[in-house]
Amino acid sequence: MQLPKLRRRGDGPFPLSPSVVDYSVTPIDHFGFLEDGTFKQRYLVNNEHWDQKGGPILFYTGNEGDITWFCNNTGFMWDVAEDLGAMLVFAEHRYYGESLPFGQDSYSDTKHLNYLTSEQALADFSVLIRELKRKVLGAQESPVIAIGGSYGGMLSAWLRMKYPNVVVGALAASAPIWQFPDMVPCGDFYKIVTQDFARSGLNCDINIRRSWKAIDNITATDDGLQWLSGEFSLCSPLKKTDLDGFKAWLQETWVNLAMVDYPYEANFLQPLPRWPIQVVCKHLSFDPSSVSDYQLLGGISEAARVYYNYTGNCPCLNTSSTATGNLGFIGWYYQACTEMVMPLCTDGVQDMFEPQDWNFQAFSDECNSLFGVRPRADWAATVYGGLDIASHSNIIFSNGGLDPWSSGGVTRNISDSVVAIVIPDGAHHLDLRYNNEYDPHTVLSARIQEVEYFKLWITQARKLQIPG
Amino acid sequence: MQLPKLRRRGDGPFPLSPSVVDYSVTPIDHFGFLEDGTFKQRYLVNNEHWDQKGGPILFYTGNEGDITWFCNNTGFMWDVAEDLGAMLVFAEHRYYGESLPFGQDSYSDTKHLNYLTSEQALADFSVLIRELKRKVLGAQESPVIAIGGSYGGMLSAWLRMKYPNVVVGALAASAPIWQFPDMVPCGDFYKIVTQDFARSGLNCDINIRRSWKAIDNITATDDGLQWLSGEFSLCSPLKKTDLDGFKAWLQETWVNLAMVDYPYEANFLQPLPRWPIQVVCKHLSFDPSSVSDYQLLGGISEAARVYYNYTGNCPCLNTSSTATGNLGFIGWYYQACTEMVMPLCTDGVQDMFEPQDWNFQAFSDECNSLFGVRPRADWAATVYGGLDIASHSNIIFSNGGLDPWSSGGVTRNISDSVVAIVIPDGAHHLDLRYNNEYDPHTVLSARIQEVEYFKLWITQARKLQIPG
Repeated sequence: MQLPKLRRRGDGPFPLSPSVVDYSVTPIDHFGFLEDGTFKQRYLVNNEHWDQKGGPILFYTGNEGDITWFCNNTGFMWDVAEDLGAMLVFAEHRYYGESLPFGQDSYSDTKHLNYLTSEQALADFSVLIRELKRKVLGAQESPVIAIGGSYGGMLSAWLRMKYPNVVVGALAASAPIWQFPDMVPCGDFYKIVTQDFARSGLNCDINIRRSWKAIDNITATDDGLQWLSGEFSLCSPLKKTDLDGFKAWLQETWVNLAMVDYPYEANFLQPLPRWPIQVVCKHLSFDPSSVSDYQLLGGISEAARVYYNYTGNCPCLNTSSTATGNLGFIGWYYQACTEMVMPLCTDGVQDMFEPQDWNFQAFSDECNSLFGVRPRADWAATVYGGLDIASHSNIIFSNGGLDPWSSGGVTRNISDSVVAIVIPDGAHHLDLRYNNEYDPHTVLSARIQEVEYFKLWITQARKLQIPG
Repeated sequence: MQLPKLRRRGDGPFPLSPSVVDYSVTPIDHFGFLEDGTFKQRYLVNNEHWDQKGGPILFYTGNEGDITWFCNNTGFMWDVAEDLGAMLVFAEHRYYGESLPFGQDSYSDTKHLNYLTSEQALADFSVLIRELKRKVLGAQESPVIAIGGSYGGMLSAWLRMKYPNVVVGALAASAPIWQFPDMVPCGDFYKIVTQDFARSGLNCDINIRRSWKAIDNITATDDGLQWLSGEFSLCSPLKKTDLDGFKAWLQETWVNLAMVDYPYEANFLQPLPRWPIQVVCKHLSFDPSSVSDYQLLGGISEAARVYYNYTGNCPCLNTSSTATGNLGFIGWYYQACTEMVMPLCTDGVQDMFEPQDWNFQAFSDECNSLFGVRPRADWAATVYGGLDIASHSNIIFSNGGLDPWSSGGVTRNISDSVVAIVIPDGAHHLDLRYNNEYDPHTVLSARIQEVEYFKLWITQARKLQIPG
């Protein structure tokens, strides 16, 4: 899906034309003065429907990837712009897409990666919003609403918490702000993945749970390894030492399917059919008591192809990647290795995966060897409030019941104005996508509620406006 | 005044003894992971009156100086501890007193100064509070109230704004959170200083206004310079090139007097009599139409001695300093040169000083030559909300009507829970001092209101407590 009416502007004054790509010059370090360099942060604007007399601004707080991709996958904002008379802004997160603080060197070493933090990103967004309000004629009094999904949704919520002077409210879609140490059980995430498969076809989760042992059995011999490589049409044949990686790749495949189990054909992480897990599960309905390891893994291979080769254009499966290239995996890994410490674990009983404890020390050691940094497990709770967010206001946390990330989401109302919306049939931020004829009514009603809150916040903001 | 019952503890487990000096090990950089060093932050604790079953913690957010000095000058906390069953904690601000991130090298260059910011200080306080609640038996559920005066008051307000999960409310005494660019007129500060002198004695402000020209007239000759040096008993005789510095020193003397114009003998910036400006003004009551330049400056010299030599122990006046050595002037200058950009100006009409515009560029150049950094004039407004603080809660802004810093203070109620208290007869955070028989009733009533809000916040916090 292409970005509607998007064009690149020149260097002239800010035009009130329908859509622009622009860049904001912002400090590399908002929290120190030794590094006084700046960089160009990319953002996209559409003001086709904007009421130039102070109409609101819907501001997408970009996450760990190319902002045009998030822009294209956030149809909700495009759908509601006319009703709200809203300007749309999609701001790219530093260190992703084109917004590289040190250009090609941004990822070269620990020193250059040092400014990749959520706090810096929130400061970028705040500086950009204030700049837009200053320089765009008619925007001085525009209430700004932060919108984001996933990590971008966490940023939206945090932007409202930390900079309530900059945004009047936030829609945090599928934002696991509680997926941090000591906030939620580490096993919930994979339990939800498992439930998605269990509800999508007979024996589906049971056969996946059995598949790990089947892989062990079959790959005990070189012939078995060769057979498995062929059965999966792997681009590189499996070696004995690749087995952990192969299993991890499969596990991530099932997780990704749970995230994008949308009710219609879509292309978010991969091009997929409608309700893709149901399609996957058609290949995994064997009676578990009678299926052979070969049959079972044959089914697993067919299931994986649903995810990796729905288009039929994929000559072989590549176990080194599981999703779109629009996401910045190294950057996100660095963030996980510093602030975004999100414990996940499996027990093989309540979930369909091999048991694995959360091992902070091992994770920390891996981070140290990869990036030369160690994660600070407690920092997110300190800086972003942990479970104690009741004193904030004007935040919607929307969650999909199918979405594994809802394990760390806010799924109950915290107050009158910090509210939760649960979309039982929704996967990862389904509510942020374009309206679709196959949408379940729960997501339609969520979108209606969200817009009602937006209107309330806009009205409140206009009443509160400080004269002069 | 000495800190009551304060003693230094060893390295054993945290004792529930009446008073301790302790140190928290905290990251030098909370906002980046390249610098992974830690430093020891000093804090003082008194739990003599603390109700160990979750009694509240009153937490002083230290400002730009030695924490024992602030502790000794914040008698209010000691006065109310018993009534509230409160633990008292006084936390030192990084880069001041003993809390030096790089020891003796902390001020050695721009690189070492890089972590001296208010954001880092707020993070230190938050980390320390969470640590105390974890490790002190009985403190797990203790509501914490931030208290501070002046810059420490700004930090208290900002701590509640940015970390409402950590403190349930804040008393920001004489905290000029609006003394930043484009928030309040830059001339108000010196106007208040002038009003203090005008109300404290006949012709007092008029004679000070005339003194600047008298200094010019008399120092036009070498004899005059010599006379002036003798009249003021200056430690180093004035040279022609020192004149701007001499005037600046006098101007700061009048400002300091306005800040500490307390109704009783006190020793905050200097040892002083009660209502010191009235004492000063006794030397400046000449009829302005008939006084000679020599007479006038003679009076000014007597007036300055009230401030610098009330004890009679000062053999000569030193124009290189105007106040206690407990404040960290270089550190504060660095902070002014980075985030704490506070425009001040004079016009000689509404105030008694020589006209001087606010010149950001000149200031920025000076900062660059001193520290190799340039101030970011707009940052404080972005990060701390500027005038737009209505969405916050549980903050008291108390202001002294005599205090020049009330020019940048919040002196009107913003909402039901972001409130202002004005103490017409109060100088700089008078309300934070011990009760005194000479206190005007307005400060007594302010203190009563403050404690009532504390009790309300504590009750609210207990109701809101998250189970488990």
